[in-house]
Amino acid sequence: MTTIANVQWALRLQAEFDHSIPLTRAIGVRVTNYDGKLLELSAPLAPNVNDKGTAFGGSISCLLTLAAWGVVWIACARAKVPCDIVIHKGNITYNKPVQVDLHAVCPIPPRAQMQKFIKRLKKKGRARIGLRSELVAEGDIMTLFECQYAAFFAKE
Amino acid sequence: MTTIANVQWALRLQAEFDHSIPLTRAIGVRVTNYDGKLLELSAPLAPNVNDKGTAFGGSISCLLTLAAWGVVWIACARAKVPCDIVIHKGNITYNKPVQVDLHAVCPIPPRAQMQKFIKRLKKKGRARIGLRSELVAEGDIMTLFECQYAAFFAKE
Repeated sequence: MTTIANVQWALRLQAEFDHSIPLTRAIGVRVTNYDGKLLELSAPLAPNVNDKGTAFGGSISCLLTLAAWGVVWIACARAKVPCDIVIHKGNITYNKPVQVDLHAVCPIPPRAQMQKFIKRLKKKGRARIGLRSELVAEGDIMTLFECQYAAFFAKE
Repeated sequence: MTTIANVQWALRLQAEFDHSIPLTRAIGVRVTNYDGKLLELSAPLAPNVNDKGTAFGGSISCLLTLAAWGVVWIACARAKVPCDIVIHKGNITYNKPVQVDLHAVCPIPPRAQMQKFIKRLKKKGRARIGLRSELVAEGDIMTLFECQYAAFFAKE
């Protein structure tokens, strides 16, 4: 749902990208939707083009990585758990070339799974979570990224 | 071996990155070694930093993707086979955070495997090849990317 709170989380994540990860500016990453069910990041094709005039695989990988990272970042920030979030591993499959602007969607895992993740993070100081983010265009999944993130509670 | 021919291939690949994939300029990708046995790409940490002051996972993924792509690009160019080279899929494992400038190394597969790939590409108009590229620092593999590329012979 597009609530004021959700829009504020989207704006905070955008500020985090702009401030802390300079390459996101070169890619042109925009947080274009966060409704509590999914996070969507977008980027124009032009700065992310390759030698074939389609989207550079590395740019797609960046956007999918950031979308999954953003889902965990918002979840931890909402739960007021200050922590470092790092990618552990990922499998990427490029199904089709992308000839349009980029839209990466990462669905937020079910509430029970998120609660378990946050509970473990608070108790153990670290927790892992699996995510699936998708580069979508024309109703198709052009690229699929299945990944695992780890969060480390910053105790200081 | 650092021969004049190998240095020329490195320079051509650098020109291809600079000309055809604009994001490589933002990342600061440099072709730093091509000796016929491996291809090494490097990038400074500063433009590729994340919120933790270490290398952004997306930047690492880009550099590893480009290193593997570069190995196939040089192999096809050397064999005088004009073709499109696209990544099909990849598995990435981030072992340790990277706190220094980035160096991605992709070993060139054994001669027999490369010859088989080029032969198939010429005969069938398409061929696939598996590669393994590594982000190395302090003698360790910080990130490992195992990937598969496809090449399509441009018949026109």
